[in-house]
Amino acid sequence: MKGKVFLVGAGPGDPELLTLKAVKLLQTADAVLHDDLVAPEIVNLIPKHALIYNVGKRCGTKKIRQSEINFLLVALAASGSQVVRLKGGDPLIFGRAGEEIEALRQNHIPFEIVPGVTSALGAAAAAQLPLTHRRGSDVLVFVTAHRADKTVSAKQSRSPENAGADWSKLASSGATLVIYMPGRDYAAISRKLAGAGLDADTPCAIISRATTKYQRTHRTTVLGLRRAPQLAAPTLLVVGEVVRLADPNEMVASFAPSVHAEIAQPAAWFEANATHAVAQSKERTT
Amino acid sequence: MKGKVFLVGAGPGDPELLTLKAVKLLQTADAVLHDDLVAPEIVNLIPKHALIYNVGKRCGTKKIRQSEINFLLVALAASGSQVVRLKGGDPLIFGRAGEEIEALRQNHIPFEIVPGVTSALGAAAAAQLPLTHRRGSDVLVFVTAHRADKTVSAKQSRSPENAGADWSKLASSGATLVIYMPGRDYAAISRKLAGAGLDADTPCAIISRATTKYQRTHRTTVLGLRRAPQLAAPTLLVVGEVVRLADPNEMVASFAPSVHAEIAQPAAWFEANATHAVAQSKERTT
Repeated sequence: MKGKVFLVGAGPGDPELLTLKAVKLLQTADAVLHDDLVAPEIVNLIPKHALIYNVGKRCGTKKIRQSEINFLLVALAASGSQVVRLKGGDPLIFGRAGEEIEALRQNHIPFEIVPGVTSALGAAAAAQLPLTHRRGSDVLVFVTAHRADKTVSAKQSRSPENAGADWSKLASSGATLVIYMPGRDYAAISRKLAGAGLDADTPCAIISRATTKYQRTHRTTVLGLRRAPQLAAPTLLVVGEVVRLADPNEMVASFAPSVHAEIAQPAAWFEANATHAVAQSKERTT
Repeated sequence: MKGKVFLVGAGPGDPELLTLKAVKLLQTADAVLHDDLVAPEIVNLIPKHALIYNVGKRCGTKKIRQSEINFLLVALAASGSQVVRLKGGDPLIFGRAGEEIEALRQNHIPFEIVPGVTSALGAAAAAQLPLTHRRGSDVLVFVTAHRADKTVSAKQSRSPENAGADWSKLASSGATLVIYMPGRDYAAISRKLAGAGLDADTPCAIISRATTKYQRTHRTTVLGLRRAPQLAAPTLLVVGEVVRLADPNEMVASFAPSVHAEIAQPAAWFEANATHAVAQSKERTT
């Protein structure tokens, strides 16, 4: 049988946030290469005969290079294995899947990508924090702290035409900014956000180990970030007015117009469209 | 029993991209309010005794207002039901969950948010298109065409200090721009993107009905968008250099440095870390 590689999103942490497709692929894999921080319940889905490689880059002394991961994917699939490359969150966001895809294509290895719940969505759900809001924030930006670093120092960089600081402009114009992998130096990020023109009182949330039983959330502001506690990795930093919605008691001006959400009893529509499943099931396909 | 509302992401279309948690909640729901375009396989998970409401806003003559949806959620949960509000993609991205959350909080209805695979991730996976790339695009922007409209006409607006055009600057600076709900007037979007300073040859992809068997993808450029075909809704428009990675034969300068992805045979690490599942399973928890 010809081998194949599946680049699969493991979701944000909670094993119940795996997709049905991810579960099916893990249960039939011959080999699994997974990142660090994959829940034991997820590893337990893998059959006993399968090879398992932890290729996580956070595992301290045991480092594996991206080129070595590429080699493993190609070699295992070429030998006929069904290979699952299990990545935290979604495979196509900040996951270096681009490089793995290039390696697979160059070596004519069939592959398929199975999306997952990216950690920003898991964190926002856990913090009950809408990432966009019709009245407040209708642009959503995902960036890494590394990029944030690059962008804010753009004026010192060799390519001043690099419009890198735009993400911070966006944040100040009402976008929601989600910083993946913010690292531990929140004070530096605070200075960069302030330096980029964000108000000192722009709300922020640090969400640690979202969707797991160890989840912790710290609500603060751009200024308050300077004395924010160190929360356990992985963390995610959300910056923007929508953070206020995580707690209605702190809702302020920009969202005030409907602090009382409109509720109206449905009229004719209600009677016409409320059906029992058993009635609808006639139209269902199987 | 006290009622509760679950705001649940249905994923991008493919029923296999539901999360385990979404399946479990649908199978035990007393009432489900779902958007249009939810696959029949997903509706079939709902128990026969459950009430099902299609509250989709695309369903032509049968319109329900957001305030009426809010009412239904509150009324059903207050009567003791386990209510699933099933939303396409992820509930917290462009889904008006913010308004439903406000209504639930004001009425002291317990609720929980279950994230899902947002359609951008489904579309990118289906098109084998990394949304970020270490060498090219490390900022990802989600926006709606409605917002695109607002932003590009910001100079005519009453608030010129609104930094609305920033998303287009971002796109021109190497970010990946994903336009949700682009509508049918691609020519207008093309003019707006060009007017915002994007090169005419910036690659774009229109992805229609991603992750379903009806999926279609059209590759073009900002200029080519003006004569792009009308694909069936829902569609999604991806703009940025990463679109070139959807087909390696068209890979160009910005990604050329590693058109041949590096592959290296793992050395000592390989022997030390390749374990069979059965050996690892001693450390597993259950």
